[in-house]
Amino acid sequence: MMQKIKENTAIFPWEDKPENCQDVLWRHSNNPIIDRYAIPTSNSIFNSAVVPFKDGYAGVFRCDNKAVQMNIFAGFSKNGIDWEINHKPIEFEAGNTDMIASDYKYDPRVVFIEDRYWITWCNGYHGPTIGIGYTFDFKEFFQCENAFLPFNRNGVLFPQKINGKYAMLSRPSDNGHTPFGDIYISYSPDMKYWGEHRCVMKATNFEDSAWQCTKIGAGPIPILTDEGWLMIYHGVINTCNGFRYAMGSALLDENEPDKVKYRTQPYLLGPAETYEMVGDVPNVVFPCAALHDIKEDKLAIYYGAADTVVGLAYGKLSEVVQFTKENSL
Amino acid sequence: MMQKIKENTAIFPWEDKPENCQDVLWRHSNNPIIDRYAIPTSNSIFNSAVVPFKDGYAGVFRCDNKAVQMNIFAGFSKNGIDWEINHKPIEFEAGNTDMIASDYKYDPRVVFIEDRYWITWCNGYHGPTIGIGYTFDFKEFFQCENAFLPFNRNGVLFPQKINGKYAMLSRPSDNGHTPFGDIYISYSPDMKYWGEHRCVMKATNFEDSAWQCTKIGAGPIPILTDEGWLMIYHGVINTCNGFRYAMGSALLDENEPDKVKYRTQPYLLGPAETYEMVGDVPNVVFPCAALHDIKEDKLAIYYGAADTVVGLAYGKLSEVVQFTKENSL
Amino acid sequence: MMQKIKENTAIFPWEDKPENCQDVLWRHSNNPIIDRYAIPTSNSIFNSAVVPFKDGYAGVFRCDNKAVQMNIFAGFSKNGIDWEINHKPIEFEAGNTDMIASDYKYDPRVVFIEDRYWITWCNGYHGPTIGIGYTFDFKEFFQCENAFLPFNRNGVLFPQKINGKYAMLSRPSDNGHTPFGDIYISYSPDMKYWGEHRCVMKATNFEDSAWQCTKIGAGPIPILTDEGWLMIYHGVINTCNGFRYAMGSALLDENEPDKVKYRTQPYLLGPAETYEMVGDVPNVVFPCAALHDIKEDKLAIYYGAADTVVGLAYGKLSEVVQFTKENSL
Amino acid sequence: MMQKIKENTAIFPWEDKPENCQDVLWRHSNNPIIDRYAIPTSNSIFNSAVVPFKDGYAGVFRCDNKAVQMNIFAGFSKNGIDWEINHKPIEFEAGNTDMIASDYKYDPRVVFIEDRYWITWCNGYHGPTIGIGYTFDFKEFFQCENAFLPFNRNGVLFPQKINGKYAMLSRPSDNGHTPFGDIYISYSPDMKYWGEHRCVMKATNFEDSAWQCTKIGAGPIPILTDEGWLMIYHGVINTCNGFRYAMGSALLDENEPDKVKYRTQPYLLGPAETYEMVGDVPNVVFPCAALHDIKEDKLAIYYGAADTVVGLAYGKLSEVVQFTKENSL
Amino acid sequence: MMQKIKENTAIFPWEDKPENCQDVLWRHSNNPIIDRYAIPTSNSIFNSAVVPFKDGYAGVFRCDNKAVQMNIFAGFSKNGIDWEINHKPIEFEAGNTDMIASDYKYDPRVVFIEDRYWITWCNGYHGPTIGIGYTFDFKEFFQCENAFLPFNRNGVLFPQKINGKYAMLSRPSDNGHTPFGDIYISYSPDMKYWGEHRCVMKATNFEDSAWQCTKIGAGPIPILTDEGWLMIYHGVINTCNGFRYAMGSALLDENEPDKVKYRTQPYLLGPAETYEMVGDVPNVVFPCAALHDIKEDKLAIYYGAADTVVGLAYGKLSEVVQFTKENSL
Amino acid sequence: MMQKIKENTAIFPWEDKPENCQDVLWRHSNNPIIDRYAIPTSNSIFNSAVVPFKDGYAGVFRCDNKAVQMNIFAGFSKNGIDWEINHKPIEFEAGNTDMIASDYKYDPRVVFIEDRYWITWCNGYHGPTIGIGYTFDFKEFFQCENAFLPFNRNGVLFPQKINGKYAMLSRPSDNGHTPFGDIYISYSPDMKYWGEHRCVMKATNFEDSAWQCTKIGAGPIPILTDEGWLMIYHGVINTCNGFRYAMGSALLDENEPDKVKYRTQPYLLGPAETYEMVGDVPNVVFPCAALHDIKEDKLAIYYGAADTVVGLAYGKLSEVVQFTKENSL
Repeated sequence: MMQKIKENTAIFPWEDKPENCQDVLWRHSNNPIIDRYAIPTSNSIFNSAVVPFKDGYAGVFRCDNKAVQMNIFAGFSKNGIDWEINHKPIEFEAGNTDMIASDYKYDPRVVFIEDRYWITWCNGYHGPTIGIGYTFDFKEFFQCENAFLPFNRNGVLFPQKINGKYAMLSRPSDNGHTPFGDIYISYSPDMKYWGEHRCVMKATNFEDSAWQCTKIGAGPIPILTDEGWLMIYHGVINTCNGFRYAMGSALLDENEPDKVKYRTQPYLLGPAETYEMVGDVPNVVFPCAALHDIKEDKLAIYYGAADTVVGLAYGKLSEVVQFTKENSL
Repeated sequence: MMQKIKENTAIFPWEDKPENCQDVLWRHSNNPIIDRYAIPTSNSIFNSAVVPFKDGYAGVFRCDNKAVQMNIFAGFSKNGIDWEINHKPIEFEAGNTDMIASDYKYDPRVVFIEDRYWITWCNGYHGPTIGIGYTFDFKEFFQCENAFLPFNRNGVLFPQKINGKYAMLSRPSDNGHTPFGDIYISYSPDMKYWGEHRCVMKATNFEDSAWQCTKIGAGPIPILTDEGWLMIYHGVINTCNGFRYAMGSALLDENEPDKVKYRTQPYLLGPAETYEMVGDVPNVVFPCAALHDIKEDKLAIYYGAADTVVGLAYGKLSEVVQFTKENSL
Repeated sequence: MMQKIKENTAIFPWEDKPENCQDVLWRHSNNPIIDRYAIPTSNSIFNSAVVPFKDGYAGVFRCDNKAVQMNIFAGFSKNGIDWEINHKPIEFEAGNTDMIASDYKYDPRVVFIEDRYWITWCNGYHGPTIGIGYTFDFKEFFQCENAFLPFNRNGVLFPQKINGKYAMLSRPSDNGHTPFGDIYISYSPDMKYWGEHRCVMKATNFEDSAWQCTKIGAGPIPILTDEGWLMIYHGVINTCNGFRYAMGSALLDENEPDKVKYRTQPYLLGPAETYEMVGDVPNVVFPCAALHDIKEDKLAIYYGAADTVVGLAYGKLSEVVQFTKENSL
Repeated sequence: MMQKIKENTAIFPWEDKPENCQDVLWRHSNNPIIDRYAIPTSNSIFNSAVVPFKDGYAGVFRCDNKAVQMNIFAGFSKNGIDWEINHKPIEFEAGNTDMIASDYKYDPRVVFIEDRYWITWCNGYHGPTIGIGYTFDFKEFFQCENAFLPFNRNGVLFPQKINGKYAMLSRPSDNGHTPFGDIYISYSPDMKYWGEHRCVMKATNFEDSAWQCTKIGAGPIPILTDEGWLMIYHGVINTCNGFRYAMGSALLDENEPDKVKYRTQPYLLGPAETYEMVGDVPNVVFPCAALHDIKEDKLAIYYGAADTVVGLAYGKLSEVVQFTKENSL
Repeated sequence: MMQKIKENTAIFPWEDKPENCQDVLWRHSNNPIIDRYAIPTSNSIFNSAVVPFKDGYAGVFRCDNKAVQMNIFAGFSKNGIDWEINHKPIEFEAGNTDMIASDYKYDPRVVFIEDRYWITWCNGYHGPTIGIGYTFDFKEFFQCENAFLPFNRNGVLFPQKINGKYAMLSRPSDNGHTPFGDIYISYSPDMKYWGEHRCVMKATNFEDSAWQCTKIGAGPIPILTDEGWLMIYHGVINTCNGFRYAMGSALLDENEPDKVKYRTQPYLLGPAETYEMVGDVPNVVFPCAALHDIKEDKLAIYYGAADTVVGLAYGKLSEVVQFTKENSL
Repeated sequence: MMQKIKENTAIFPWEDKPENCQDVLWRHSNNPIIDRYAIPTSNSIFNSAVVPFKDGYAGVFRCDNKAVQMNIFAGFSKNGIDWEINHKPIEFEAGNTDMIASDYKYDPRVVFIEDRYWITWCNGYHGPTIGIGYTFDFKEFFQCENAFLPFNRNGVLFPQKINGKYAMLSRPSDNGHTPFGDIYISYSPDMKYWGEHRCVMKATNFEDSAWQCTKIGAGPIPILTDEGWLMIYHGVINTCNGFRYAMGSALLDENEPDKVKYRTQPYLLGPAETYEMVGDVPNVVFPCAALHDIKEDKLAIYYGAADTVVGLAYGKLSEVVQFTKENSL
């Protein structure tokens, strides 16, 4: 099934590593690729997801409007860099449920499984929890039962069933600016009922790796490699001037993904450019999606910057895996 | 199935309403019926569940030991008032899962469904969540998958399937002394995977009914009446000297139990006796179980008092239903 | 005007000081004089005000009902000890304003000025503030403009105009369990517009008098003595187990009552009896009214105990004044 | 009286809307118009007020000195853009009161009513409350009674009496970084005694308009239009990295200004330029004054940026009114 | 030196263990032995220390007066049960320092070392820290340098030098109701300069022993036994209604007392009697002193109850040691 | 001894004051002098110390690596501006103690006393406290006993003994983002045992000097001048968007340095350049070291900027002293 996606003939978004760059990831030279005012009503566009689609790419974008209401919008691109985003938010029809309330939607992820594109997001239902929907064509969208009770954020599906069941990462939360947070995995036979909840990975001790000592959450759809599932995630440190979000990576066991094989002690990319350090929420890089090409050994990570704009970073897939193994906690 | 329970020939624990008592519930004259030191290791025994069993009653008791470790213990009684509690906590074997960690167990509920006794409790698995187990005989116990991700408390099963699925009330929480809390319902086809989460009932506005304005949580197994499911629950107000727990009642639609038909504005029973106002946690009445006899129109509610001892209160089932309808918010 | 009140011929509530009692105040021997369940709907009756009326006494009582809704009720007594409290709360008509919303009413004070009985209370108008009303007969009641913006509590009128203006003590607050609080005075030419706000008295340093180091608030109507206004007030200390309320006294300058002449370093009466230490809010004595007879040198203080019941304490007026002078901060 | 001001012949500060600008407000091209170090002692100059005066403009400026003491300073300008600010703070003489303490002064507003210029500000008197003063010539200044008890901020007078009384907007606060706040109106016959307090407008629900869901406060003096009083105000959202201040507008009933006719769901202007996002307090735009010319249909709004400098924004008065009506909550 | 104390001929305070008592400690039958009003000015007398002296006992008592000012008072007893406490607090002269400020004194401990009685207490010097003083006769008292910087509480000396240096246990704190706290040891060559600070024992994990999971602090002077130093200490759990204090015991290595050999998982004595559960601070037992007679195998522990009165508990020294070894964490 | 340092022949880092600059301090024209990525593993380099060494300068640098682990690194420079920093952190051998644990090291200070270079830093030992070490050559380093119990930060030695004892400034703290903090002085005969703790200087009242009203801490090694010890320190204000750090100066009595002779009401330098306002922790200038040349009347201050990079500022020593005297609180 994933093969079909891989045979996507679209141009892969890419720039080679700059000379003198010692880092495992590097930024697109013309970041941010999407500005806060890219559609007429928007206050900010960030924390968004993309996926190969037809001869190009489709995306689901978090656009907060100027009332700072949060919603998700479909968009399309030929090259993964220049995007046309719809001016109206996605309207959902009922999927596997009578339609349920949705006070807000934010931080989407998208993945193709079997026959359709599944979307998960943070869904406002008496507080944040994980919403699930799907589409076949990015025109008609169907909303399903929420996966969990409130309060939860950062629900991320695996791109294929594991042991015959759908699998989802998530981070139990509270109803505010949650000051804690670990990554769990849950399974479902049918995308409706969920169980077998297991703790995957916890925030670290301050002394061991302070950038991820307050909370962590899964980012893009995990990528299957020879070393297991590559999970790129965000970690947070609580400074005296607020939360600072950076991104790291982990390798999870292919068949038992609650087993962490490796996990980076250093971050891969932290807020260091102006558009990452200045904006509605300073000092945030927040990855939500990644494209990869295993043959070409390319990885392109889309991340929200300062809760205001969308940035793009590149890396060699093999180097990221290698770095994760060699710099593991 | 429930009929079988009803035909239980045990003596129903009961005292008639005292003269001059105007209230819908009244206390057992020799409360507390279980003392904090009733077993050798205990610091406190409270928030416990009972169920008809053979020619008497069985119970699952929260006994905190003198290291204040929380665990659940089986116990037995002929009359529902005098109890023999085992000196060792329940040991579980694997039920529908490989055995999972359980840092602590507290606040159990017990219910007979179809062929066995199901137990739910607050289970320590990276924080509080809802543990599930079952027994056929109160000798061998089997522990299943946790129902939900952390953080959750007060998981209470309905005594029969609803629309072909198991149904459970619960209260999403945080990992501390949760200062908020509403009651939700979730469904499962198999006691392993859970979904279709719906909000049932929220904490009230301070002005409308302050005793339940901070948080609420389901108590005993709901009782099916002609007016729907009678749910006895606890409500909390946050005073300047801490949380005060009282108990109220609601009537839920028989087939769509996320629909609240009636809900008491006044409490049914609040902390007013010394053993309810003084103890390890002052000012707590916390109902976890109820016996009822529809023919005799009797209701006996077991509740934890001051997080220290077990109290027993009586009422006429029909009067409680009537009171709930006539004093609804 | 006050003379008229003094000529009230009612029996003054009184018991002589017990032998061996060294304290300046002593408790009524049959405290609490009003039980929490004294009217059918009540959960608690406390923090209430009384005033001479006809050949006996009238009162305005805080009765929280069993939904823990707060309201004020009229009541009557021949001897100041045995009370008949109305079963329905006071209903107000418009006084000097179009009727304004009143989400709740609590902690009343009552005083006769010139030609009528003025009532102040904590009024719920987008949070707590000071409500004002009046009555001529304790049958018809009229509600006026709130004195202040939210958030305020413990509004207490002086029993006569000062320099030609009405004068009111109050305590600016926040909208929760305010962890701070000082006593201010404000003036009004007409009971409608208020100004000339002055700080009267602050919470103390912990080292100087810890029982009143967290917050303070005026209690009964101030009493004019040869030494100035005798103000009985409550003080609060924040222990690791919550707020503890005791009562003290101060003497304010007759003509410039923002000048504090004396103020007790020790408390006069603190929670030490069971009904003061155990109840809905443990460790509270909260004075709201006092009767006095200057000729007989008698003082009777009504106070809420544990936010649950009403207690009564006695003292010699001259001894209280003397004690205040000799034990001043 | 207002006519007199309108006939002011000073040059109105103005720049036409830039091409391609879709917004209802646009920034001055050379913002910030006043730098943080514009006078020798200043650390920052922001949240300031201006008013037509003689053949130009006068202003009252919040200048925090390098000890970060807050005080207000007079200043003058011919064109409303280039300002000369006095190097010494305003010294007040007694107005309608014996002089009262004033620990600090900040966030001034200025308005001409009848015969003089009234100034209101946040006055430090045992915590923040509303100070009132006046001047005839911006040379001699007179300080009056504070309008309210602590704690209050953002006191804003209407430019004319309403129903024969002075009217003031304000926002009850606490003594810290107040995490709540709604707009109230109060009336006075004499600028000394205040009453008839009414709630005007509350912070919104998060789901409806998150930029103003934490607190709101009035900004410039309200402007009388055919649609009622145009009130420009600030709204605050609490992000995980602190408060973010943006500005919106509302239309209040001309004769009953506690009635809100329209109120913008989206903000009019949010922090998006570097000098608004970076400074002593990042992500703040805080409007305190506006000039308008009804004939020319011009509006010029002065706002503090990042609690550090003064910015200027322009709009068409009619477009702002229209936008407020068409984008109302 | 210690021998001299042992040869004290005073009657040892004692009652034999009640029949049916299964616990390692039991309470004096006439507890509390000292009432809150035992001296004229006192509000409460608790957390106090006693020591053999001449042919009886001397003590240093924490008496909070009715202004709730904290100070320490000397007292004397023939039998260790009936006490005469001075009505005036201890006045100190300068010991090894110019006299330093002392805003308050509370929670004393007393120990005889070499030639004099050393007293330590919580001393108010810009916040709580450890005060040190000595006396030869309980008439003249000398105050020395504070041992540590603020903030610290529960400074407890060992009864003899260890490796040639004085040794003191203490608990670093903050300046409020410290929600954390571990026991440290420090050494001094001269009772003036302190160093070599080592962590001895930490609060436990909630799952392991919840009664001591919030904070712990040393209680009486440690007692040298064949198994090392017996340290009786208090532990705290933070319930939703405040802190609950119980007492446990540990055995420390004789020569390296920062090494914990055993430590009780269960508490030895928790608040269960009314005078321990009800008072100024409910649910507190707080041991500050112990008498022991090794030959007679007797132990008598003095403890504050509910921050209001003094209780006395007995045990067999050998049983306490045995219990500590057999119930160790 | 200090003379020897003075005879250091290295080029003093310097730039003359820019024309039009009115301030007492001015920034290096090419700030920041050390970038966040100056060594391969670093995330940030800031809060660092330098000292004359041989014919140039040595330094101890705080480099947080990309796991945000904190450690200190040696570095060397010919001109005090261009630095070579070692790629590996300092490894310590035992000094006057068995080696003790050190979970992290940050915010170093360095000073030459008598025969060696002493280093102090914030040392992770069950929370932050003051670590002490020394070196003769910046190749071999020796770690001594911690000076104090946790929790403490900003330990700064005087450059010579005072009254025959070593003297250290420090700031008692808590274990989080301490919201309070005053400067104390302590003495030691031997760099091992510390005592005679005296309070030197407190955070100010908000009204008097708000930039330093939350907490203060010593910065560089104090400099002996004709007017006493010049202590440059940081002060913090808590804004609604977090802590803001600026720097000021004080003059302490030469022989009794707990006596403050003068202390600047205004700050000397606050965050105003982009690299000071934007970074991992916005709005921080944090001085840790200063070079001075008394003959040339030059002062060069090294400070951390935004917890990310190192800045350098210059001033005339005599002008700083004069400014401190003339602008004293």
